[in-house]
Amino acid sequence: MSLLVSGTVALDSIKTPCGVRPRLLGGSASHFCMSASFFTKVALSGVIGKDFPQKYIKLFQSKDIDMKSLVRKEGKTFHWNGEYKKGDFNTALTKSTVLGVLAGFEPNIIDAHQSIPNVFLANDDPEIQAKVLKAVKMPRLVGLDTMNLWIEHKKKPLLKLIKKVDLFVANDAEARSLTQENNLIKAAKALRKLGPKMVVIKKGEHGFLFYSDEIMFAYPAYPVEKVVDPTGAGDTFAGGLMGYLSQSKTLSKKALKQALCYATVMSSFNVEGFGVERISKINKNDINKRKNEFLKFISYQ
Amino acid sequence: MSLLVSGTVALDSIKTPCGVRPRLLGGSASHFCMSASFFTKVALSGVIGKDFPQKYIKLFQSKDIDMKSLVRKEGKTFHWNGEYKKGDFNTALTKSTVLGVLAGFEPNIIDAHQSIPNVFLANDDPEIQAKVLKAVKMPRLVGLDTMNLWIEHKKKPLLKLIKKVDLFVANDAEARSLTQENNLIKAAKALRKLGPKMVVIKKGEHGFLFYSDEIMFAYPAYPVEKVVDPTGAGDTFAGGLMGYLSQSKTLSKKALKQALCYATVMSSFNVEGFGVERISKINKNDINKRKNEFLKFISYQ
Repeated sequence: MSLLVSGTVALDSIKTPCGVRPRLLGGSASHFCMSASFFTKVALSGVIGKDFPQKYIKLFQSKDIDMKSLVRKEGKTFHWNGEYKKGDFNTALTKSTVLGVLAGFEPNIIDAHQSIPNVFLANDDPEIQAKVLKAVKMPRLVGLDTMNLWIEHKKKPLLKLIKKVDLFVANDAEARSLTQENNLIKAAKALRKLGPKMVVIKKGEHGFLFYSDEIMFAYPAYPVEKVVDPTGAGDTFAGGLMGYLSQSKTLSKKALKQALCYATVMSSFNVEGFGVERISKINKNDINKRKNEFLKFISYQ
Repeated sequence: MSLLVSGTVALDSIKTPCGVRPRLLGGSASHFCMSASFFTKVALSGVIGKDFPQKYIKLFQSKDIDMKSLVRKEGKTFHWNGEYKKGDFNTALTKSTVLGVLAGFEPNIIDAHQSIPNVFLANDDPEIQAKVLKAVKMPRLVGLDTMNLWIEHKKKPLLKLIKKVDLFVANDAEARSLTQENNLIKAAKALRKLGPKMVVIKKGEHGFLFYSDEIMFAYPAYPVEKVVDPTGAGDTFAGGLMGYLSQSKTLSKKALKQALCYATVMSSFNVEGFGVERISKINKNDINKRKNEFLKFISYQ
């Protein structure tokens, strides 16, 4: 089985207390597919501009990411310029955003990709996300992520879309904002009522909460001592989660817990470097080694 | 084996989004011993005034709490008047504090209590805490809690005291403030360097992190949907932790994990009612039932 992800492919200029990096590979779909590619074959839908560096194309190729639904257009790649201040890695301060080719973009999922059974709608305009979902035939598992911008400005199309997905991934602030419930258990239940059978609320350094009608569970985050850049941690988490589930025969409780452990581990690697620097240097052994450490960290035995 | 706790015994007037309650039983030692009494025999050291209600004395008696080191003095019981605003149960806003008999209090640990093997120095002036510890002969296990007030105003005696204890319990803000480390793993390691072999950082609704030279682990909090009043949650947590360890033959990894599960469960009951309302109505069956639910909630199986 394989996985289709749609979302943003960006260039990120990032400043954190650990340094400054210009024009890194960024965007929700980039972080997602770099992570998911460790588990399954990934096809990437999105748009890049003429300025998109060849080295990032090569990086995607090295991860066997299928770019046939990735459109290259005249103009500039979406560019985000942001900063994290000392002591607060939870708040990304946007210094500037250049939409570039993202403005007015219409997704173009090639025929072969329309029958991919697993789909993730990474953070993007919900109207774009809905178009991608519409193009997909008979998906087995559809996941969705969003951000506060869309909850504030495109709530109606977002609520329409969320009804149609199986798995909704949100961070705590988004979950609270979308449901108007401050308590995260109540927020998870309220999100379930909006449609998705499975809800994951990500809590950054505090891990996540999973909720479905059958089961609710929570794990802390993997203990990372040196956070360098949290950009894309949530997308990387979702990539591990969906990547694992896409190659799993079932969506059993056991598979979900496995998938969420991998998600946790993948996001822990992500925050240890700028952009995808760290993720692009690890291998499957590193992932499994850290997963075993994580299981010890959360174990009751 | 049994357990001696010293700390404040207070009357708390509390307002939360769920209601208002005047002159509830409060204080670090009260919450602690109500929780610990489910696991072991507890002796309570502290001071109350002439106005301390007989019903609370009876409540302590009903839990078989030994009050022979609890001093009753002329004057008023320490009174805290606080509020939690909607959507922020993490911040207790102090409206007024009346020290009453707490001002100038000298602890008086009776001879029989000086040889109790397990001791917890619940949140109080570190100079008072040091006097209690000095009175104790050959303790097996000494635990310590504090608060930002003492970290800011009595850092020197606190740092002197922390060297002498086995187990230090702090919330995340206190851990960060005392160590000047924002990352909680680094903060835990820095606290270990201050002396205590075992460090527990409480993260409120996000659970806790345990750190020692041998092991580091973390569990989320028990999922409470209806938080009524978080006052004393940390003391109740510490009561479950120390209460369980006091009756445990060893301080093995297994015993620590058990103790911290009970701590988590006890604090979850605490926040479901004002003051000690909820804790005073539960029994051992309720505790074990919730502990089993909690083990499912954190399980990887």
